[in-house]
Amino acid sequence: MKKALVYQTDFGSSDGAVSAMYGVALKVDPELKIYDLTHDIPQYNIWEASYRLVQTVRYWPEGTVFVSVVDPGVGSSRRSIAALTEGEQIIVTPDNGTLTHIKLLFGIKELRLLDESRNRLSGSELSYTFHGRDVYAYTGARLASGQLSFREVGEIVPPESLVCLPHLNAIREGDIVLGNIDALDVRFGSLWTNIPYSLFSGLGVDYGKRVELSIRNETREVYRNTMVYARSFADVSLGEPLVYVNSILNMAVAINQGSFARAYDIGTGISWKLSLRRAPRIVYE
Amino acid sequence: MKKALVYQTDFGSSDGAVSAMYGVALKVDPELKIYDLTHDIPQYNIWEASYRLVQTVRYWPEGTVFVSVVDPGVGSSRRSIAALTEGEQIIVTPDNGTLTHIKLLFGIKELRLLDESRNRLSGSELSYTFHGRDVYAYTGARLASGQLSFREVGEIVPPESLVCLPHLNAIREGDIVLGNIDALDVRFGSLWTNIPYSLFSGLGVDYGKRVELSIRNETREVYRNTMVYARSFADVSLGEPLVYVNSILNMAVAINQGSFARAYDIGTGISWKLSLRRAPRIVYE
Amino acid sequence: MKKALVYQTDFGSSDGAVSAMYGVALKVDPELKIYDLTHDIPQYNIWEASYRLVQTVRYWPEGTVFVSVVDPGVGSSRRSIAALTEGEQIIVTPDNGTLTHIKLLFGIKELRLLDESRNRLSGSELSYTFHGRDVYAYTGARLASGQLSFREVGEIVPPESLVCLPHLNAIREGDIVLGNIDALDVRFGSLWTNIPYSLFSGLGVDYGKRVELSIRNETREVYRNTMVYARSFADVSLGEPLVYVNSILNMAVAINQGSFARAYDIGTGISWKLSLRRAPRIVYE
Repeated sequence: MKKALVYQTDFGSSDGAVSAMYGVALKVDPELKIYDLTHDIPQYNIWEASYRLVQTVRYWPEGTVFVSVVDPGVGSSRRSIAALTEGEQIIVTPDNGTLTHIKLLFGIKELRLLDESRNRLSGSELSYTFHGRDVYAYTGARLASGQLSFREVGEIVPPESLVCLPHLNAIREGDIVLGNIDALDVRFGSLWTNIPYSLFSGLGVDYGKRVELSIRNETREVYRNTMVYARSFADVSLGEPLVYVNSILNMAVAINQGSFARAYDIGTGISWKLSLRRAPRIVYE
Repeated sequence: MKKALVYQTDFGSSDGAVSAMYGVALKVDPELKIYDLTHDIPQYNIWEASYRLVQTVRYWPEGTVFVSVVDPGVGSSRRSIAALTEGEQIIVTPDNGTLTHIKLLFGIKELRLLDESRNRLSGSELSYTFHGRDVYAYTGARLASGQLSFREVGEIVPPESLVCLPHLNAIREGDIVLGNIDALDVRFGSLWTNIPYSLFSGLGVDYGKRVELSIRNETREVYRNTMVYARSFADVSLGEPLVYVNSILNMAVAINQGSFARAYDIGTGISWKLSLRRAPRIVYE
Repeated sequence: MKKALVYQTDFGSSDGAVSAMYGVALKVDPELKIYDLTHDIPQYNIWEASYRLVQTVRYWPEGTVFVSVVDPGVGSSRRSIAALTEGEQIIVTPDNGTLTHIKLLFGIKELRLLDESRNRLSGSELSYTFHGRDVYAYTGARLASGQLSFREVGEIVPPESLVCLPHLNAIREGDIVLGNIDALDVRFGSLWTNIPYSLFSGLGVDYGKRVELSIRNETREVYRNTMVYARSFADVSLGEPLVYVNSILNMAVAINQGSFARAYDIGTGISWKLSLRRAPRIVYE
């Protein structure tokens, strides 16, 4: 059976770029089923492309072919690659850090160099700026349709050769867990950290108890307060902040029906550090 | 044959949430056909979710399964439900008012409680904040694929138990019809009222004649003027206001190639009242 | 086999309009495969609708049926048409200039009047404002499914009768090529001109050499500077401007990872003129 083909780009949906990528795939095989992860990755933001992949791929069937094109280096000597993940899915992308989270959290089983001279839409030789259409959508479609096997993409290269973005692992130091803010739940302004629930749970905080949250950016402490560790938004009052386990089982911070990110002007990335501990008992004497 | 599966959320399309809902459905059945109503419902705006359903479902085939997730109460004791409409379509949603317009205008044939313990993506037990993926998309996909029958969703509950938002019916008082502004035609700024054409037509105003329109919000009259009752925008000058019958056969107000909503800062909901009457004859003596 | 059906509108994706168009097509034939070009054409902007078609249709399979609805004249006497292109694709649209670029650059093989009385969703007779749903999506779906042949759409009319927007051809004057800015690469702010690579290449400028670019709007020169003629963004420094051949083989102007359009407040259309020449040698004496 044909495999699902899923696109992610930073092209937006307002012009014809994504539609051209759809057309190219349907010319390869009109029976293909094509889906979108998102096309609203902020321009050139490889980190976010990497994060959205790790957030979603596990919910897709085995064998799904993902094509992710956030490609500020198009036309440079950056490599094009296809990765077979431990979850038996294929991701076709420029080798610029887009697979950072996938490698870190899920693992790469086999990595192959995508030979652009052989895997290229015929007639596109004069176009140097749209590999999303000419190389990646075309190759992804051939893989999803079965016209091209993963082996035929190009030679094997070691997974260690993959370009990775700088990143940090969440850690526990005594009674504190430390991590950074990986991403926002865009529409709702929640902070998604890289602290797994399994690490936080070691602190032994029960649902309904309070935790102390601190957020720092570079040298500045941006936020420090205590709040409830809740199962879900509905466990706190409207407008109240909470710490919770998000939908991919990492620790997250939100304001019930408000935007934590906007309220305190919080960003994402490894310079946005966050720590959680059991809330101290406050004693008036 | 498999039924179409249609998603509506307030998640936006910028992160991976909707894509995860697609993946979950395709894992249930890779042959499913999944479509979007919209993912741009303003956050937590149940009223608008309710309205967009009533605006569109009748144009979809019988048997279509809709999944609508605007769910500020996720994790609370709010019920999850599946409704069989009089039009033989199924809507899966939290029971929070999302079916207000459907019940009012089309009717609910049978309502069933969605048993979340049985109808849940396996492995998602630790996730309390994303029923859109773990419960609704999963159940919608099983219904659309035929793996789950409507009966098997859960026990029957009376349609009267459905949570409904406060709403008003349009009425006629003598030579005036009164209603409220239910929604905007977002991109074009037209006002869509809850006054059906069948009610307005009782006033006996012919196309091309003038009507007097008044708009009030709470205690304030926001707008009062006369304008042409036109078949379509092209019947008036560029920039001229008009009253017309919209695409779901309710009365609507617009400015030809302008935005009535923005021009007069008009909102939606039951506090935005609107009245129409035949325009008075103005006599200078 | 069924043909792909592709929608383009200026309706946005935030309300139910596009979804109603999907439903109508699936009621015609539930097996149809429907795709989007874009729904973010700026309201009433026929020029941009025309451009997005010419940018994308060649990447879609032969036989694809496009439905483009940017329709400020809905309800007027403007004609509805279906065009068979030289590339053997069908475009269904109001006759308001939407086919300007297609006719100019690809050619129209046969043009037929769309008889709205015969090609109309049954029951939609009272609706005068949404031909996108009632006429175009419905007819496009019947064409794509094979229920309606191109011949049956309506009578043949001469391609010369097509409404076209004013447009200019790019020309060469001695050592200068002149054209206008047809469109923006929306997300990235690049300027896409109507100057084909084949015209520019006559100047004999090699990759890596400098060209002089001038942009004028009405009587004002908005920009004049020299920059590198590069294969791709990666050939210049971050933040450096470049002239390049875009993905549809026309000349384009960009700032590497910046927005040329926003940097200099550049618009599109025939009043935005642009010229390119080999950069002069600057001699200090």
